[in-house]
Amino acid sequence: MESPRIRMVLVAPSHPGNIGAAARAMKNMALDDLVLVNPKQFPDAEATARASAADDLLSAARVVPTLAQALEGCGFVAATTSRDRDQYFRVMDVRDAAARIVAESRRAPAAVVFGAERTGLTNEELETAHALIRIPASSLYPSLNLSMAVQLVSYELFRARSGALPELPADPPAAPLASPAEMERLYAHLAQVLEEIEFRDRTQSGTHLMGRIRRFLQRAELDHNEVSILRGILTAVQSRRRPAGGPR
Amino acid sequence: MESPRIRMVLVAPSHPGNIGAAARAMKNMALDDLVLVNPKQFPDAEATARASAADDLLSAARVVPTLAQALEGCGFVAATTSRDRDQYFRVMDVRDAAARIVAESRRAPAAVVFGAERTGLTNEELETAHALIRIPASSLYPSLNLSMAVQLVSYELFRARSGALPELPADPPAAPLASPAEMERLYAHLAQVLEEIEFRDRTQSGTHLMGRIRRFLQRAELDHNEVSILRGILTAVQSRRRPAGGPR
Repeated sequence: MESPRIRMVLVAPSHPGNIGAAARAMKNMALDDLVLVNPKQFPDAEATARASAADDLLSAARVVPTLAQALEGCGFVAATTSRDRDQYFRVMDVRDAAARIVAESRRAPAAVVFGAERTGLTNEELETAHALIRIPASSLYPSLNLSMAVQLVSYELFRARSGALPELPADPPAAPLASPAEMERLYAHLAQVLEEIEFRDRTQSGTHLMGRIRRFLQRAELDHNEVSILRGILTAVQSRRRPAGGPR
Repeated sequence: MESPRIRMVLVAPSHPGNIGAAARAMKNMALDDLVLVNPKQFPDAEATARASAADDLLSAARVVPTLAQALEGCGFVAATTSRDRDQYFRVMDVRDAAARIVAESRRAPAAVVFGAERTGLTNEELETAHALIRIPASSLYPSLNLSMAVQLVSYELFRARSGALPELPADPPAAPLASPAEMERLYAHLAQVLEEIEFRDRTQSGTHLMGRIRRFLQRAELDHNEVSILRGILTAVQSRRRPAGGPR
């Protein structure tokens, strides 16, 4: 089996034991790229104990201060959530998501993002993802332990890598997906332009609005060229406003 | 989703944390029948902590001294193993096994047996199973944590119960599978008869021989009537020998 370009990202894990157990789960399923965003306690003896023979993977784990840094170099990004559906995100069953992630990882490194044990991912963190991953579970107690979620996703990725791969989605973008960093620059640019043009949505607060926009743009799975087009439009909006001085 | 008749049996688990994590994994996947055979330490605070909101399931777990007692009332029995193949057992991929277990649980309670953390199941314990479950994993580090194995099997069972069910295998036995206790009585009877007739296989020791026989009989998935037939044959062998007094 070829070495995968699939990164597992744990955001603010609070129990070191879960980090170790996640490392073991990954190694069991032939994954090796673990990134920790602001872990509460790491390195830690409990993490090492639970990692068992995956101590090498644990030692190689990178610790970074922001999710954006964890996603550097990545193309497709999926985030785990306990939400069954979301009006604005694409929500994929973990099995379908695994097939997609493996297919995408052939084009650029792909990432799966997991939230903290009690709180999960914030809306802002979810908005770095192209799709959300749903793990089917009992409606009476759907909250899986963090390392168990890593195990299940890693298992489905292992199966997807072993098996026949589905085609990429119909009409895949011709170019690679825009990187998370490119998308962040696009959103920052957009937010600035919205402010410059004093855009106010009557029904929503400013942050809610940006969240909505981010979600549908993430769902669009933009490639580099498409982001360039949007950035060009934004720049054009700005440059037309500047020389004109505008009436408002 | 209807209440399943699927029992999870942990044989001699040595880490209480794994028992608690297994309970949570089961409840997440809508299973509730946990049986512990000779746990090293139970109940235990670490088990309760790791069970989280599955503390009710943990409290309801039954503790028994033997695997035979754990399997009382069961029909189909599957056992987990890290073996990729076994010459004599039927080895099923966990996904196929889950579909089969769910189908069988409609006829009689089904059981999944997990071995101790370091040692797994003994040959004798494996021989109570109709099939072995194989969880696909990295050849470099295939040894999953016990509670992770429970999670993966429970997850596949949940999916199998949610989805369209496959038919039972072609030519299913018309009657329910013989219970584990019936099978044990059959093997005891057979061993006795083998001794009475002073049967010795030239190539194998006595215990190895019985193991081989058990495996192929387990693989046959005998129903009650078929066991009765075999028992009848054994009794006939004995009664013919007794009055005759035999020359040997």
